[in-house]
Amino acid sequence: MKAGVFDSGIGGLTVVKSLLENKIFEEIVYFGDTARVPYGVKDKNTITRYSLEALEFFKNFDIDILIIACNSVSAFALDELRANTNIPVVGVIESGVKALENKIIDKNSNILVIGTTATIKSQKYEKALNSLSYKNINSIATGLFVPIVEEGIFEGEILNSTLNYYFSALKSEKSIDIVILGCTHFPLIEKEISLYLDGAITIHSGDAIVDYLKLEYNCNNKFEETKTIFFASENPDGLKNIAKIWLKDLI
Amino acid sequence: MKAGVFDSGIGGLTVVKSLLENKIFEEIVYFGDTARVPYGVKDKNTITRYSLEALEFFKNFDIDILIIACNSVSAFALDELRANTNIPVVGVIESGVKALENKIIDKNSNILVIGTTATIKSQKYEKALNSLSYKNINSIATGLFVPIVEEGIFEGEILNSTLNYYFSALKSEKSIDIVILGCTHFPLIEKEISLYLDGAITIHSGDAIVDYLKLEYNCNNKFEETKTIFFASENPDGLKNIAKIWLKDLI
Repeated sequence: MKAGVFDSGIGGLTVVKSLLENKIFEEIVYFGDTARVPYGVKDKNTITRYSLEALEFFKNFDIDILIIACNSVSAFALDELRANTNIPVVGVIESGVKALENKIIDKNSNILVIGTTATIKSQKYEKALNSLSYKNINSIATGLFVPIVEEGIFEGEILNSTLNYYFSALKSEKSIDIVILGCTHFPLIEKEISLYLDGAITIHSGDAIVDYLKLEYNCNNKFEETKTIFFASENPDGLKNIAKIWLKDLI
Repeated sequence: MKAGVFDSGIGGLTVVKSLLENKIFEEIVYFGDTARVPYGVKDKNTITRYSLEALEFFKNFDIDILIIACNSVSAFALDELRANTNIPVVGVIESGVKALENKIIDKNSNILVIGTTATIKSQKYEKALNSLSYKNINSIATGLFVPIVEEGIFEGEILNSTLNYYFSALKSEKSIDIVILGCTHFPLIEKEISLYLDGAITIHSGDAIVDYLKLEYNCNNKFEETKTIFFASENPDGLKNIAKIWLKDLI
């Protein structure tokens, strides 16, 4: 089975990591729209237009399934994408919510959803969680985590003051049980987020989507190896270098 | 005289502010490429391609001069832009360096150039300063200031820790006399940067370009009012709202 993975930039490599660790695909074609990154500060129309262009690109590769690693695209463009292709298109929001449902049974748990401005504005996580009867949902747009991670900062003074900036008011008010990391960059600072929120459980899009693909799309094969091809709309060598660092012996 | 002002997003409004305060144009047409912002993390080819597309857009407006408010475009695409139009194209790097020359006579002064990754990588400021025999030039890519300012943060813990992150090593080594703010977002945190660097003089692209336009392009008229039109490649209303806040009674 051959999967396409689409992201606005490099963040989706955290999803690829989970896919590779679980060896559920024979081949992965990755496309990061690095020439127009980030999507998380842009609006529905722009995000949808860029996503449909990416879909056209993937049509050259005869993929069996398209995985949308980007939360902003999953929030805004999933319906449009599905209307323009016959293969399944799977986003990270539905799988993230499903993963939460497997971990948290108590519908009164305090849930925190974090993501880019676009993702949080879409309220897609909230709606999905509400429909499953979760009652205590808090959402915070934590856009600054993206450039901080891209700067190569994973700990220290800047990250701590940013955690403080976004979460201190909430933390003084209630104890968070579970955090949905609604942006592919956030797994890189997963431990720091959990630690700041007194050990809250984190939901990581990559791990969540693997479980979801097994359950909903019967991706239960385990291949000996997964062939990977990486494309980017600018500086593909830069993306390949980061893939080598983040994915190490997996590629 | 009718000017076009081009920026990758909203940052160029700090340049428009200086142009309006000095009333040197009858009309200003502003275009911010908000659908593809930021440029400062992208490469020369992409920045040049986007800039030439913007030039085509400005050809609809019969402008007399095109002002490139974006430092990343000024660093990489100025020659290509000039090769594709007959009107003058003025960038913020040449004017920034000229402004510095007017303020600092001592060629041994400690100069700090800050900007996005793209601008600093281009070394355009350094080359221009070297050609004027300045000897002590330090450059630091301070990309995080851009999303911080866009988040609406102009003071406090995050900004302080970021100032510390970028400048503490340099500060402990030498005393900086003058800082070139090589990105249109930085004037919004000009005071904080100067304060952190023990009162270093700051060079602001907007003020610098007004002086440069007067000197080199004879823009010495003072019009009663300047008509402004704002365009953006996505969410033009968002840009207009920010223009109203930043430019207040000037528009």
